[in-house]
Parts: sequence; structure tokens; C-alpha cells
Amino acid sequence: MFDKQEFVSKLVVKNESKVVLLVMDGVGDIPLNGKTPLQAAKKPNLDALAKESDLGQTIPVLPGITPGSGPGHLSLFGYDPIKHQIGRGILEALGSGVEVGERDVVARANFATWNGEVVLDRRAGRPSTEESAEVVRLLSEKIKKIEDVEINFYPGKEHRFVVKFTGEGLGDNVTDADPQKEGKPMVWAEGLDEPSKKTAKIVNELIRKIAEVLKDQPKMNFALMRGFSKYPKLPNFCEVYKMRAGAIATYPMYRGIAKLVGMEVLDTGQTVEEEIQTLKQRWNDYDFFYIHVKKTDSYGEDGKFEEKVKVIEEVDKVIPEIISLKPDVLIVTGDHSTPVPLKAHSWHPVPLLIWSKYARKGASNAFDEFECAKGTLGTVHASDVMTLALAYAGRLEKFGA
Amino acid sequence: MFDKQEFVSKLVVKNESKVVLLVMDGVGDIPLNGKTPLQAAKKPNLDALAKESDLGQTIPVLPGITPGSGPGHLSLFGYDPIKHQIGRGILEALGSGVEVGERDVVARANFATWNGEVVLDRRAGRPSTEESAEVVRLLSEKIKKIEDVEINFYPGKEHRFVVKFTGEGLGDNVTDADPQKEGKPMVWAEGLDEPSKKTAKIVNELIRKIAEVLKDQPKMNFALMRGFSKYPKLPNFCEVYKMRAGAIATYPMYRGIAKLVGMEVLDTGQTVEEEIQTLKQRWNDYDFFYIHVKKTDSYGEDGKFEEKVKVIEEVDKVIPEIISLKPDVLIVTGDHSTPVPLKAHSWHPVPLLIWSKYARKGASNAFDEFECAKGTLGTVHASDVMTLALAYAGRLEKFGA
Repeated sequence: MFDKQEFVSKLVVKNESKVVLLVMDGVGDIPLNGKTPLQAAKKPNLDALAKESDLGQTIPVLPGITPGSGPGHLSLFGYDPIKHQIGRGILEALGSGVEVGERDVVARANFATWNGEVVLDRRAGRPSTEESAEVVRLLSEKIKKIEDVEINFYPGKEHRFVVKFTGEGLGDNVTDADPQKEGKPMVWAEGLDEPSKKTAKIVNELIRKIAEVLKDQPKMNFALMRGFSKYPKLPNFCEVYKMRAGAIATYPMYRGIAKLVGMEVLDTGQTVEEEIQTLKQRWNDYDFFYIHVKKTDSYGEDGKFEEKVKVIEEVDKVIPEIISLKPDVLIVTGDHSTPVPLKAHSWHPVPLLIWSKYARKGASNAFDEFECAKGTLGTVHASDVMTLALAYAGRLEKFGA
Repeated sequence: MFDKQEFVSKLVVKNESKVVLLVMDGVGDIPLNGKTPLQAAKKPNLDALAKESDLGQTIPVLPGITPGSGPGHLSLFGYDPIKHQIGRGILEALGSGVEVGERDVVARANFATWNGEVVLDRRAGRPSTEESAEVVRLLSEKIKKIEDVEINFYPGKEHRFVVKFTGEGLGDNVTDADPQKEGKPMVWAEGLDEPSKKTAKIVNELIRKIAEVLKDQPKMNFALMRGFSKYPKLPNFCEVYKMRAGAIATYPMYRGIAKLVGMEVLDTGQTVEEEIQTLKQRWNDYDFFYIHVKKTDSYGEDGKFEEKVKVIEEVDKVIPEIISLKPDVLIVTGDHSTPVPLKAHSWHPVPLLIWSKYARKGASNAFDEFECAKGTLGTVHASDVMTLALAYAGRLEKFGA
């Protein structure tokens, strides 16, 4: 099958240019009372940038497909998000800030209630995050190893936690240890190949041990595990695009995805302003910077229009600081849309702005969903954004004579 | 793998319609002092045409990918430019007006300087085109055949020339006879399969003979050869699209590419006006005409804005003459963009205009990059242009019941 990333990689050359990819998570929206947050925001700097830029919009996966954060970001980084699927266990682990290595298998786990045979409640009555963390601490004390496999537990939200299995020869082709429905007998993990049979055996033994340790708990007396996954093997971003890439992100999930593709994850603070300070401090160390702004998505998911507008305005304020560093290419986009009226990720195309001296500039006076839909770049796949970034940076050779 | 051309071909039907594809090479641009050449040009006829046409823009290969003339044209002719890659030797030969047949292997060659072991200068001190042609004439006199393989030499620009090997059973899976760097020992050709081993043997013997013939030359005393290629096997344009196709082009490269896909290449003059005279004279002989205008690209590559504008104005003047022939479909586009500020081919989308009585007309008053970006055709792949041409010409059946 044709692999676009492989094709593009062969044309990549190095030069001295600097590229900044600024991702406002979930920035795309649909109008509420006639305006989207991008239209409602006072953003003189982004609008001035739009005058000097090529605009367009991206499709993260396929028209109509709503991406999770994993596919949304992989696609923006140039990876085919359908070919490269990241296990949920890994994403949950990355989101919890768990370090995952090559000898690890991770799983999403739930506390559950069972009566020794039937699973009565798959969420153990939805304990608070604090109650649940307390029980995770207990498990961490009592269970450290099964056979030669090291076990680590990490607390999550409410009934959720993450389990990491570390050892030699563990496979991740393992079915979920979860009956999926309540009132059903437990369904145990099953390995679908030899290395995965080893994992499944450890998983089932671990669940029995957990049941033993927690036998006196009123509700959290059992655990279900699913989404077993190893660290995925992805082409290395820095090798594919021949750039030193630094990632500036405040949330563990995005730091994790950047690390997964091979970027260096930089220490930074919790605000957009702190992220830009990091950009300035590390400007000379990298050719490519990925900067992630989380809160546009968070407020989209919470249905908070005004707050989403404010995050966009906050990003607008730092644009001159980025420009003052004299990047050769500045891309402003999102990984997907998160419309306020939907309170969720969506399938709507995502606004895209590419600022460069080679832009077909002058078509637009504003950066928003509607101007982008009419833009000179047209509608492209999100995995084309990296190709465009390289092109505008002069880092791609001509294809064919 | 899904082959779009094969799919489309199955739907093609014949009728009496006439289609003209007018290609202004490298016409797409980016603004200089606020305007692109298309915007700056006085082009009343093209703008009037735009009012009666569907506009759009094309991506020749992939977003961000800058195509050479080969891929740019193949794509416009409906061929997948990634699947059908044409060897550099063939393109160089076509560009030099060399006829290539099925028994031929062609190579790009350089005069070089060597000391009997090490290549001192890969370009032999960059001789003038005249000096170099003189030496090519000498080689043509002295070397006509090696074993059963006929050898022909063709002069090129400066140190460059083309070698054609004609014989039975010659392969083109041959590595370059070129050390790539100066001060290195010669690297000889190597055949990677049986027929190519035969070619490699002849190539290496030829280079030794050249060294012997040129041993008294001060600088041009050696030759390097690379890009060995046979005539590529491409689906025949006239068969795929069930049209008699005539090509009107002034430059050898484009006449060559048209011939490569199976069009008939018509005798014509050197100016746009002469090309249109040819169109008129041969109007009844073909269903499809490809007309190539070179100078928009040449002036783009030279960074000459005003001159590029004048070529567009020159094309504008002949539009009424084309329309007076009553074509059913007139397409005006480019094979890629060649922005004046870049002085090179680029990745920017290419303006596309389709004039036909079936156009969704009325959206625009001008033919330029910005109007095309907002056009009713959207952003399409250049290899879709032929499908659209057939559709507007009523030459495609419905797909499915």
C-alpha cells in the first residue's frame, strides 16, 4: 500500500529553517447565536496573520469521522491515523503521565463489584477519585510482582486506573478481561499468540490476587482490564522529516503522544505564556516546535463558549512573541473540532493557517472556520500539514524531473 | 490497488464532442506587490470565460509536493504520477528532442575530467554549449557501435549530453556510472538483472572508449552516465479515453511527454499564435487537443514578473480564436505553479477553469488563483481533470444503476 509519509520522507532535505506548529486543541466550532468562538474572539494578531497567510481546512481522518486525541494528533504529525492505531491502554497511560517502555504492556482498568462469580457493577458504584486512589495505593503495596513480571498501578479518574506489566516476552494481543455487561459471569483474558498467552496468564492471576486483597471492600472488590497494548512502533518523526523536534505541551496525554513519535518533550509550565517562554528559551535547540494549547478543547467539551473565546484571545496575545523569534513557517490549527453546542469532539473540518513568505497571501482578513473554508489551500487531509510545513520551509526537493 | 484511470476508462463512451486542454506551464503564482501575474494581466477574454465557467484548483501530486514537468503533465493527462514515474534519462532525452523507441535505453551524460583513476571535475570545468557540442560530434564520428548495440550521442546544455543505446535485450535496471563526488575513484555501472547486466557492460565499455577518444582533451576527457531508462510502458491515452488526441507544443520535452502517452504530436511553429493556427488547421482531425504554452513557466523560473504577465496576455488574445472553433469543453490550467518570487516550480495549487455549457457558471468574474480557490469545482487532484473533461463533454456513462 502506498505510504504517503514514506514517499514524502524521500524528498526531505535539511536546511536552517524553523517551523512552529501551534495546535489549539479542538479549536474548530459551529456557530452559537451566529458566531463561532473564533469569530467572537478579539484576536487582532491572528487576523493580521491571516492576511499574510494561506488558509485552508483539514480533515483529520475522513469526512464525517470524529477523531480522538490520538488519531487527531498522529494525523497532524504526518502519520496515517488509520494505519497507525494506538491502543487505548497506551493512550490512557500517556494521559495519566505513565512512562511506557518497550518491555511494558499497559491496560485500562476499572474497579468493579462482583460476588465471586458474577460482575454486579462494572464501575464499583463510581467511587470518588480520592477513594479510588486510596485503593490503588493499597494494591501497589500488596502486589509488586507476579512470576517474573513486575506490576505497577496508577490511579485515574473515579473508578479508573492503569496497570503496567513489565517483563520479557509479553504480547499485547490479549482479549479484554471484562464481561462488558453487568450481571454476567467474569470473562477472563485470553492470549491470541504465544507471547500474549503469557500476558493473559499474568493478567488473570493478577485479577484473582486483586480480588483477594480487596475481599473486604464493600464495593471496590474486583478489577476489570481491557485495551492491552504495548508501546507502538511508529516511524521516528525526527528521522522521517530530518528535523530536531521539540514538543511543548502542558498535559501528559499530548506530551506522551509527542514522545511516542520521537519528539523531545520539553519542560514547561501550565499556561500558554509559560509555554511561549519555553519556546523562547529552547529556540536554538530545535528546527521544529509543536506547541499544544489544551483549554480550547476542554471548554468546548464543557460547553463553555465564553471561556473558549478567552483561551483563543490568550493565544492571540502570544502570536507577536512567536513572530518575534522569526520562524520561517508558523502553522496555527487544531487536531479536531470540539463545538461548544456538541460538548464533544466532532467531525467538522479544522481551520488551518500557514504563515510564510511563500504564502499566497491576501485572500482573507480573518482566521475563522468560514474564511478557512474559502482559503487558498483548499480542504486537505491533516496528514498533509507536515508535507506543507516542509514545502513552505524549503525542506522538500522537487518530485521527478 | 485501485487505479482511477482504469475505473474511469470503463465508463468512457464516444461522441462527436471536441475538448481543448490549454496548459499554461507554471501559470500559478503568489502575489508580488499585492498581485499575481494572473491578477496583474489584462485578460478580458479569460475573465469573460471565467464568468461562463466552473473554476477550481488542482493538486498535481500531493499537497506540498512540487512536481517536475513529467509528473505535472502525466497527472493532467489522467495518470497517477506516483505510480507512473518516468526515468530522468527519458525526460532528458525527450527534452533534447531525441526519439526513443522500445529497443532503446537512454542515459543523461556529463563530460567530466579524470586522471585515469579519480574524477577531478564532474562537469569538466563547465564547457560552453558550443564547445561541448563539438566534442559530442567527435564522439558520434568515432563511436557508432559496441558489440551489437548501436550508440548515439545528442548534445545538451553546457557539460550535458544524452546517450542512446539501441539493441536487443537491454535492461534499464542499471546503477549510475558516476562517483557522485569529486576526488573519488570512478564508480562503474552495474546491472541489477540479466538484461541490465548486458547494458552495464556496454556502458562501462563505452565510457572507456570515450576516455580513449578524448585522451588529448584538456578537460572534457571523460564521461559520467546516470538515470538509465527505457521507454516507459504507459496506458495509451487515446485508448483509455477513446479519443483521437493531438498535441500542440513548441518545446521537445512536452512534445515528448505527449508522444509517450500516445498522443499524435502535430507540427507547429514557435509562438502561441502559430500553435492556434495549427489547432485551426487540424480541428477536424482530432477529438482532443493538448496545447502547451511554455513561457509562463520560463519567465516564472527567471523571476520575470512583467514578462510572465505578457505571456498570459498573449494567451488571452487567442481565446476568442479557440472559442470560434466551437469546442464543447475548453479547459485552461497549468501543470504546476512557478511563482516569480521563488524562481522555481512550487507546490502551490494550480488554477483550473472548465468552460462548457454544463458549467455551474456565474460564481466568478475573473480567472486567477484566488477566484479559483473559491470556485465551484473545489480543490481536486490534477489527475481528475481528464475525468472532468470527459464528463463535461458527455463522454462518461453513469456509474452504477
